[in-house]
Amino acid sequence: MSVTADHRRRLAAAAGLLVAQDLRGLIVPPSPDLAYLVGYEPMPLERATLLVLAPAEAPRLLVPMLERPLAADATGAGELEIVGWRDGEDPYAIVAGWLSRTGRVAVGDRLWASHMLALQAALPGTTWTSARPILGAMRARKDASEIAALRRAALAADAALGDVVGGRFAGRREDELAADLAAGLLAHGHDRVDFTIVASGPNAASPHHAPTARTLEPGDAVVLDFGGVLDGYCSDTTRTLSVGEPGELLAEVHAVVREAQAAARAVVRPGVAIREVDRAARAVIEAAGYGERFFHRTGHGIGLEVHEPPYVEEQDATVLEPGMTFSVEPGIYLEGRLGVRIEDIVTVTGDGVEELNRSPRELLVVE
Amino acid sequence: MSVTADHRRRLAAAAGLLVAQDLRGLIVPPSPDLAYLVGYEPMPLERATLLVLAPAEAPRLLVPMLERPLAADATGAGELEIVGWRDGEDPYAIVAGWLSRTGRVAVGDRLWASHMLALQAALPGTTWTSARPILGAMRARKDASEIAALRRAALAADAALGDVVGGRFAGRREDELAADLAAGLLAHGHDRVDFTIVASGPNAASPHHAPTARTLEPGDAVVLDFGGVLDGYCSDTTRTLSVGEPGELLAEVHAVVREAQAAARAVVRPGVAIREVDRAARAVIEAAGYGERFFHRTGHGIGLEVHEPPYVEEQDATVLEPGMTFSVEPGIYLEGRLGVRIEDIVTVTGDGVEELNRSPRELLVVE
Repeated sequence: MSVTADHRRRLAAAAGLLVAQDLRGLIVPPSPDLAYLVGYEPMPLERATLLVLAPAEAPRLLVPMLERPLAADATGAGELEIVGWRDGEDPYAIVAGWLSRTGRVAVGDRLWASHMLALQAALPGTTWTSARPILGAMRARKDASEIAALRRAALAADAALGDVVGGRFAGRREDELAADLAAGLLAHGHDRVDFTIVASGPNAASPHHAPTARTLEPGDAVVLDFGGVLDGYCSDTTRTLSVGEPGELLAEVHAVVREAQAAARAVVRPGVAIREVDRAARAVIEAAGYGERFFHRTGHGIGLEVHEPPYVEEQDATVLEPGMTFSVEPGIYLEGRLGVRIEDIVTVTGDGVEELNRSPRELLVVE
Repeated sequence: MSVTADHRRRLAAAAGLLVAQDLRGLIVPPSPDLAYLVGYEPMPLERATLLVLAPAEAPRLLVPMLERPLAADATGAGELEIVGWRDGEDPYAIVAGWLSRTGRVAVGDRLWASHMLALQAALPGTTWTSARPILGAMRARKDASEIAALRRAALAADAALGDVVGGRFAGRREDELAADLAAGLLAHGHDRVDFTIVASGPNAASPHHAPTARTLEPGDAVVLDFGGVLDGYCSDTTRTLSVGEPGELLAEVHAVVREAQAAARAVVRPGVAIREVDRAARAVIEAAGYGERFFHRTGHGIGLEVHEPPYVEEQDATVLEPGMTFSVEPGIYLEGRLGVRIEDIVTVTGDGVEELNRSPRELLVVE
């Protein structure tokens, strides 16, 4: 996906923020942050692979010696000094030698504690902080090619849903339907499936339900929440269906969630605080008397990761800017009875919002 | 794989080690450690899921409210107090309330820095240390059912290799052969494929080579290093083949690696320091003049993770005990020319060693 010019620009931006935030270093482990900055995506493992940025220094990538040839093939390798360490050497001492002895150093959110503890021991005078204010903020503002990739992923997820809702639900098992959704994501171009929640009847009250052998029956609500990766970028969408004609409760709860989701989408535009999106959804659900049954944030950023900054919640101070892309997914969960969630990915445009998912949002009745 | 009795026994053992090592707490994130202790395997995410053990307290599992029903279904759930936190609450403050204000707290190696930094801020008087001396040491000694699972995984990997070496190599691409190996692992019972290295000709000098479109030709060395997961436990095996009759160099280097690997396996028995296994392999390769070209450790523990303690290297102080299971995989890499590695999984028995892989180790000539 990314090209060398992207990596040069992103590394320069990170270096600028490093200086602006008075940091002595930025340490990034194998993670979507590393893929974003330098196009290198090794498995995180017990051997240290660490990108190290320091003020006025060229970016360095420390890698296990036996992975040096792999690192040299990364899209952004030309921007890096690649340093290999051999089993038996101390990689943390090497990193410590590249950073000044005092001051603040930021680390990528996914750095493993095994590496973090060793770095803290190697640099005892350092104050450690999260790289989220740098890397989370950079990655939150998607460029045109990233939005195009997210749009393709969203439309592929819509197409997978379209295939599944054309089939039968009553008499089939949650795990069978989950397999159909997974196959649909792959058939419509996904490189990888990450999750396929099929939560029916009382199971629909469990937001992250793992599909079981439960057989669907008429009267069930069914929450389908699924996603994966296409061209490096994630999809994540949710629809709630009714098997046969919906009962009164399902129809009522679905209408509330649908109104809440529409209200949240309606406030998205540049300059609005992201917490207003959360408040808009929550206000509708609270007014309907279900406030206690909506016990999660309204959404999350999406990009190289399925959950990434910004978060659509009261605690997030982000003000929306063009390119920010996130889910809007209020839900209501009534334990032992049913659950409803509707989720779309939206992106902030120059003056408003683009909805990347296009699946219908009304309560679809399936057989 | 694990049953409730396993979890009860493992949690009690961890609690005992906690007290013995004068720790005030043990914090375990989603990871193989958590699967081992309580049979719960959620995706690691930005929302905190943390198992917390403290002296004289029942084990507590803190989970995002929307994953509470999932956690309650874990094999070990009956041994736990499961506590849900809602978006907007501070999960780290909850954990801090469960631990004393001072002393040492151990954290699982895979805890993300985002969670670690937040815990460090919530418990400023605490000294942080790795849980490896507890959990790594416990997991290193496999019980009979774990060894049985590792044996099944190893034999399935052998069977996948057997299928592939029966076919043609010359004229085929590395990535095609990698796909065949992956399909073979699945056909022989693996639930998941984690890696399929096919490194041919000069690429064989890159130990963690990612398969390319390179077409194999007569005279190539080909390193096949592949593995995945079967019944929760990992496979990992390597063989080096010759496409057509081997040249003199390949034949010589292969003979050295084969002798080194045999020498290393021969010293495995209870009471031997694991570094002696490394030394035995290294001595053969150094005597042959290739010491500098063997630039990685001789092996790694294997179980729920493909790399886990103990490590077969000079720095590891482990003394072998029955049940310890690890790879023995010396290699020689000649940049631009060829590479050779031979890898088997072995387990320490009551009085010696059992070799879990059974594939022939001589230099196999393929067409």
